[in-house]
Amino acid sequence: VNVGFIGLGRMGRAIAGRILADGHSLTVYNRTPGAERELVAAGAKPARSIGDAARGREFVITMLADDVALAEVVGGGLLDSLDEGATHIAMGTHGAAMIAHTAEDHAAAGQRFVAAPVLGRPQAAAEGQLAIVAAGEPSAVAACEPLFAVIGRRIFAAGPNPEASAAVKLANGFVLACAIEAMSEAFSLIRRYGVEPELFREVLTGGLFSAPGYEIYSRLIVDQAYDDPGFTTALALKDMRLALEAAERAAVPLPSVGVVRDRLIGAIAHGDGERDWAVLAREQARAAGLEKD
Amino acid sequence: VNVGFIGLGRMGRAIAGRILADGHSLTVYNRTPGAERELVAAGAKPARSIGDAARGREFVITMLADDVALAEVVGGGLLDSLDEGATHIAMGTHGAAMIAHTAEDHAAAGQRFVAAPVLGRPQAAAEGQLAIVAAGEPSAVAACEPLFAVIGRRIFAAGPNPEASAAVKLANGFVLACAIEAMSEAFSLIRRYGVEPELFREVLTGGLFSAPGYEIYSRLIVDQAYDDPGFTTALALKDMRLALEAAERAAVPLPSVGVVRDRLIGAIAHGDGERDWAVLAREQARAAGLEKD
Amino acid sequence: VNVGFIGLGRMGRAIAGRILADGHSLTVYNRTPGAERELVAAGAKPARSIGDAARGREFVITMLADDVALAEVVGGGLLDSLDEGATHIAMGTHGAAMIAHTAEDHAAAGQRFVAAPVLGRPQAAAEGQLAIVAAGEPSAVAACEPLFAVIGRRIFAAGPNPEASAAVKLANGFVLACAIEAMSEAFSLIRRYGVEPELFREVLTGGLFSAPGYEIYSRLIVDQAYDDPGFTTALALKDMRLALEAAERAAVPLPSVGVVRDRLIGAIAHGDGERDWAVLAREQARAAGLEKD
Amino acid sequence: VNVGFIGLGRMGRAIAGRILADGHSLTVYNRTPGAERELVAAGAKPARSIGDAARGREFVITMLADDVALAEVVGGGLLDSLDEGATHIAMGTHGAAMIAHTAEDHAAAGQRFVAAPVLGRPQAAAEGQLAIVAAGEPSAVAACEPLFAVIGRRIFAAGPNPEASAAVKLANGFVLACAIEAMSEAFSLIRRYGVEPELFREVLTGGLFSAPGYEIYSRLIVDQAYDDPGFTTALALKDMRLALEAAERAAVPLPSVGVVRDRLIGAIAHGDGERDWAVLAREQARAAGLEKD
Repeated sequence: VNVGFIGLGRMGRAIAGRILADGHSLTVYNRTPGAERELVAAGAKPARSIGDAARGREFVITMLADDVALAEVVGGGLLDSLDEGATHIAMGTHGAAMIAHTAEDHAAAGQRFVAAPVLGRPQAAAEGQLAIVAAGEPSAVAACEPLFAVIGRRIFAAGPNPEASAAVKLANGFVLACAIEAMSEAFSLIRRYGVEPELFREVLTGGLFSAPGYEIYSRLIVDQAYDDPGFTTALALKDMRLALEAAERAAVPLPSVGVVRDRLIGAIAHGDGERDWAVLAREQARAAGLEKD
Repeated sequence: VNVGFIGLGRMGRAIAGRILADGHSLTVYNRTPGAERELVAAGAKPARSIGDAARGREFVITMLADDVALAEVVGGGLLDSLDEGATHIAMGTHGAAMIAHTAEDHAAAGQRFVAAPVLGRPQAAAEGQLAIVAAGEPSAVAACEPLFAVIGRRIFAAGPNPEASAAVKLANGFVLACAIEAMSEAFSLIRRYGVEPELFREVLTGGLFSAPGYEIYSRLIVDQAYDDPGFTTALALKDMRLALEAAERAAVPLPSVGVVRDRLIGAIAHGDGERDWAVLAREQARAAGLEKD
Repeated sequence: VNVGFIGLGRMGRAIAGRILADGHSLTVYNRTPGAERELVAAGAKPARSIGDAARGREFVITMLADDVALAEVVGGGLLDSLDEGATHIAMGTHGAAMIAHTAEDHAAAGQRFVAAPVLGRPQAAAEGQLAIVAAGEPSAVAACEPLFAVIGRRIFAAGPNPEASAAVKLANGFVLACAIEAMSEAFSLIRRYGVEPELFREVLTGGLFSAPGYEIYSRLIVDQAYDDPGFTTALALKDMRLALEAAERAAVPLPSVGVVRDRLIGAIAHGDGERDWAVLAREQARAAGLEKD
Repeated sequence: VNVGFIGLGRMGRAIAGRILADGHSLTVYNRTPGAERELVAAGAKPARSIGDAARGREFVITMLADDVALAEVVGGGLLDSLDEGATHIAMGTHGAAMIAHTAEDHAAAGQRFVAAPVLGRPQAAAEGQLAIVAAGEPSAVAACEPLFAVIGRRIFAAGPNPEASAAVKLANGFVLACAIEAMSEAFSLIRRYGVEPELFREVLTGGLFSAPGYEIYSRLIVDQAYDDPGFTTALALKDMRLALEAAERAAVPLPSVGVVRDRLIGAIAHGDGERDWAVLAREQARAAGLEKD
């Protein structure tokens, strides 16, 4: 099929690469030029504008960093240029309110909209191993499925309401955040009692918590390996903010997420905003007087 | 070896049974008579008193429900009757302060003390599949290891400070509590957005959280299966209280545990104290107006 | 002096009325027509547009409900029409980010900007009894002082940074919110112990808390008088959101405000969004099983 | 009347002094000798033991530092020696559980028990300006009233359940704690926005919070005057613990108190345990990166 792709960060390039490799016609656009080079060398067509990327495509995929970027793309040409009946697939992590507004805009323009955030890192994307949480009008989601099959190993259909996929993505994210915070508190406690962090790590991951979320982050915490971030404190704070906004919108208190939010802010106040968010463990240790600034 | 065993609840009976089956001489005592019957039929000797269970043994294992029961056993005969050089192994879940006091008492009496709480359920104990977190004077812990090998599949040596094993046990417990709370908040959020709980469960356990802690409790939450408790809300609150006390003693703030504590109290206020503590999800749903009392 | 006034809600009308009564030339504008009627009858000139209200005035005062309304007024004519050297005084409760953006816009246009939120209710405004927290370039603030003297009984100069006055206003607001939440928790506790709420109210207000914040809200709580709101739960949630955003912007964790936020959301989930925010006490009582939905 | 008095700390001496000055027969006892000297010089009789202080008195007042001290006094002679029909008035700050147990013990012994904690500092006690919150069997409370009239300016009768007065005392205490925490958060926020703390103090205490609780503590915070404690962080933590225990006993979640608890623990972790608990503001500033350890 004929696909437009807007937003060529690491994740965007990995996903676009799979679509291209599968033999589809792909037109790519990135606000900052240069990111499209490799894809174009591999056969993608470069677009000169958002409108250019959108016009005449059956599907336009956006993989954008935040709500502001999505608003600028939608308002800056996508809405005006997307054909009637064509589908915008938003694969970035966005807030529920933003997704709701975007859905309304497309509906008013006679276009289709599927919110389909992904779970996994760019490496998983390149290998077609992402999980995709898709929500939108059922026939629109169904029409996307062949494309999704190229991108991910598993597709979760979260129902007709596009916001639902945002809720799932954000909830999955904060469950991880709470796990990291809980580990952070636990490591502070056992350190104060003279226990080796590595031993406690083995207790955790050898029992109830033998899962990647605990394996990966307890390793970073034990090694205090915060300087080569997989995901930064600042980005984590953004995701917690989106989760809290989605929850406020739906009238759901999230007290644990509030705790994580405060610790992330504290980490930023102490200069750890661009470190890996496992640095929550260091922020918690500061609160317990175990680490100096 | 010659072992005394005090405290024959479900977990105590399972552990005592393994020691007996391994060919050791076992003398058993339970405050409420009757619990020893099966073990005695299998060859254990019944003790008429705590002192009787303790006198002349190389090891006395206690598996008691709480700190009060431990204090009553230690003060009610164990301390007076245990031989000099013999070892008291406390395998229940106790507070750090209680463990510290018990350690001091035994040291003053020339007796050895190892705190060795276990991770796992009675069924795992019967199968020798427990994990044991042992702490105490290294030669005392080493002397216990043959016994531990009969009981558990894995032994974690948490160092010379007996309180350290309490800290590890309590920390492992609250990491699970925080996971259940985080899932509870997540399920409330996605329900409000119209997502099927089962779908969200698959997202969680199919990705970062493919571990027993999440598999088991997300299943209970999705099925709202709270009435056949594996572990009750009231007992969970007791463990959170011990964790918070251990943390206060060591000057460690535990904000996430404070959140769990409040939800557990809320669940009890709404009549769910004797239900499975996965009922946290229902208490969270109440707070979000999703469930009526 | 020649004053424009935009935003004629209850508070706006009260402030505008005082300026008019003091003999100044006043031009008024409200998005929804009709609100200006009484002021016009008393001698104010009606403006047909935002630009009309702004052009040729020395001062333009805005008293708007939220950040969106302020953005619409600034972008919808105020910025374009305000004379160079003239001053925009923003007296609504706005977020720190919004105030910062507005300040930049006016500076770029050669206009002056003073953020001057008020403390007090419309009745106090009508009597000239407001407190005003003003921040901005010192000479600009000084130039506003004669006008402020007409409006309020006390002026606090919070320095050259316009955001500073937003921070003061929001902080004062959340200190009150935390007081209401603390009282709510206290009333739940003493009710469970069989104490008459009125007696506890007397203890509080007869001692350390003999101040309007406690007098007023403990009275509402004891009387459960939530249906004639002085300030609604929904508006309170908006102010807590602004406070948390201002805090996030400045990297300050506010754990108590997070607690209030969750209770306000819970109150909204239970249908109390348009009641007086003293209804926090009822939401807290629900969490303690003392009130049914 | 004939009064025994046990516990001659600063508050105890002040209260005992008023009773003596009013012309009653007073017998005094303190565990650590010496504290009774001044009272004896003024006419009080020294007791050699708890039993000696209790035997033959109509009323025995205890003013003890904590639950452990009260348990030791009750079990160490008071219960055995107090005459049938005589009244034990416990004026210290105690936990609800401790008060309940003490009440049961006295009832079983045919003695009367009134829990009557006080609000105010020793200076207020010396001037007869305390508030007294009394609870117990109504005729027993009524019989105490002449004595209370000598000690305090105001008596609050909290009903027949002795625990009720503990609940009132603890609730009043945590409302203050929450106010100090809220101010602490507010001062951190406004400092980050460049506002002078003194200005913010004037805003608070000039408006909704013109009460001693805010006047006193905002002054200490602005002056960072933590080294001459009126009440220490460690004692405040003890009171929060009692409040949380009383709340757990009654199934009441207290999320704000949990926040205060964590900050107090953090302050202790940073070495501020023996400073005035207004040092919460410094601990909060640490969390915001505004203060180094």
